[in-house]
Amino acid sequence: MSAPAAPPDIADIEAAAARLAGHAAVTPLLEWAELDARTGARVLIKPETLQRTGSFKFRGAFNKIASLREGPRPPGAVVAYSSGNHAQGVAAAAAMAGLAAVIVMPADAPAIKIAGTRARGAEVVLYDRYREEREAVAEALAAERGAALIRPYDDPDVIAGQGTVGDEIAGQAAALGVALDAVLIPCGGGGLTAGCALALAARSPATRVYSVEPAGFDDTARSLAAQRRLANEPGARSFCDALLADRPGELTFAVNRRLLAGGLAVDDAETAAAMAYAFRSLKLVVEPGGAVALAAVLAGKIDCRGRNVAVVLSGGNVDPVTFCRALQDV
Amino acid sequence: MSAPAAPPDIADIEAAAARLAGHAAVTPLLEWAELDARTGARVLIKPETLQRTGSFKFRGAFNKIASLREGPRPPGAVVAYSSGNHAQGVAAAAAMAGLAAVIVMPADAPAIKIAGTRARGAEVVLYDRYREEREAVAEALAAERGAALIRPYDDPDVIAGQGTVGDEIAGQAAALGVALDAVLIPCGGGGLTAGCALALAARSPATRVYSVEPAGFDDTARSLAAQRRLANEPGARSFCDALLADRPGELTFAVNRRLLAGGLAVDDAETAAAMAYAFRSLKLVVEPGGAVALAAVLAGKIDCRGRNVAVVLSGGNVDPVTFCRALQDV
Repeated sequence: MSAPAAPPDIADIEAAAARLAGHAAVTPLLEWAELDARTGARVLIKPETLQRTGSFKFRGAFNKIASLREGPRPPGAVVAYSSGNHAQGVAAAAAMAGLAAVIVMPADAPAIKIAGTRARGAEVVLYDRYREEREAVAEALAAERGAALIRPYDDPDVIAGQGTVGDEIAGQAAALGVALDAVLIPCGGGGLTAGCALALAARSPATRVYSVEPAGFDDTARSLAAQRRLANEPGARSFCDALLADRPGELTFAVNRRLLAGGLAVDDAETAAAMAYAFRSLKLVVEPGGAVALAAVLAGKIDCRGRNVAVVLSGGNVDPVTFCRALQDV
Repeated sequence: MSAPAAPPDIADIEAAAARLAGHAAVTPLLEWAELDARTGARVLIKPETLQRTGSFKFRGAFNKIASLREGPRPPGAVVAYSSGNHAQGVAAAAAMAGLAAVIVMPADAPAIKIAGTRARGAEVVLYDRYREEREAVAEALAAERGAALIRPYDDPDVIAGQGTVGDEIAGQAAALGVALDAVLIPCGGGGLTAGCALALAARSPATRVYSVEPAGFDDTARSLAAQRRLANEPGARSFCDALLADRPGELTFAVNRRLLAGGLAVDDAETAAAMAYAFRSLKLVVEPGGAVALAAVLAGKIDCRGRNVAVVLSGGNVDPVTFCRALQDV
């Protein structure tokens, strides 16, 4: 595995879309009159919660594995590290390719994510989120097993796969006759954000793209402001388990720095309120990390009035206890 | 209001679809590889949970009110009786038409349904489900206020509106190249079932249509077997609050008797398991009454292996406590 040199371009995203056709869901772009009335905007929701494995991560994992298999040295097995959504995406894509998968996951990952990874046939190796370096654990495992390491975001094929979300948003909004003013995207390491920003820059260049992060993990927002990669404070905590990257990816930030209009952040109470809103009014199950972009719109972190805004719900893999607590807190 | 004489036909359903265009959502027809693997079937999910007001009922209410307004005596106000989904559908459609709405609801209806009806501007009159006749209360109110009574299912315009669900299923399945073997539909008074059966008989005549009811409220299933309308036992209880009609509608049963392949029933534990499955694997919020058709497939009430089956999720208006209890029981 050589280090990635260049980010993908729109041709790479279109190639990813072609690979994914018939394997990943083309998730719909949905609207609710009540949401429009509440926000004063026209809000289009892209529910990647409905994607295979319950999050967008299947797209990048599938594209990466398919790319490797088309290459000169197709792998016999794959290794990944992930808090749970990339884990399930890699497990599912590996199983479809007939490859063994070993996934390094934090011991405190949601039970639904660990179970979902195992249910898709992967071997799960747990590590201590606060004491071990997951990349080092995964790299050692990959070397030991002669397996390909599927990185969660800092890889051009993974970014291109996630970019198909933005490609679909551009096409679906155009089909509705909607010129998008802004797209808001949940952001951890920045792969989904970078992929969507690349797709939208090519397909809908007037659209402003924003990352949305949990407060305390707003490394991309602060890095955008500083124009260099900054890390989060080590003591930060959030229930958005999918978005706890400690700093922006190198490749993803190179894209996001160039293409994003800005970075937003929401606190956990605002995210829980968005999860409850999605339950009550959209009838969608959204995990904490998947709900931050909706939370930004509902909490007024950006002025949407009179605008056309697309919001990505990036995942729905949440344990019942966490979900029900979010419903009760509001 | 004269009593309805004849059921609608496919032309009435197409006319309803034209009225609804731009006002109701065309809900997607969704698939999950995991659901197919579990059932051995190809299962297409029609989530009317994503419809305006959170259930299919908006379709029939909107079509009825639009039809009345096109007629010789457009109403100044409307009255309806409903356990909550028709209530919200009528409230929303009336508000869009600028009409006052009074809705007669059982005092023990889910809080989310009573609040949703009031939030849409309707006046709510509560009655005791076990001591008062809701039709009599509503008819007296309609006479007193000079308002049009919007019946929940035994009305050809309401049935035609609900039939647009079946019309969309036929069109969306055809677009996917899927020949549907069966469609399973949650059934209370039978309006959604009759409307869909009429649409599918015209658009996909080889498809077998089944009603699905809660055990103890399987009046349509027993009436189909007996070839005459039978009532439920008065002491029956179920948490499927949307499906507690005491007997099939006259007009709806005339259609369903002719067109249905059969009637299925599921108990509340099977329905709760389906709600939990939808949470965990489909990331959709489904209310008890909305989950019975999915429950029938998951519980093996019909042999789906190797078949193409569409399942309607008819509504998602459920209180958090009821929802979270269903997740915990499984």
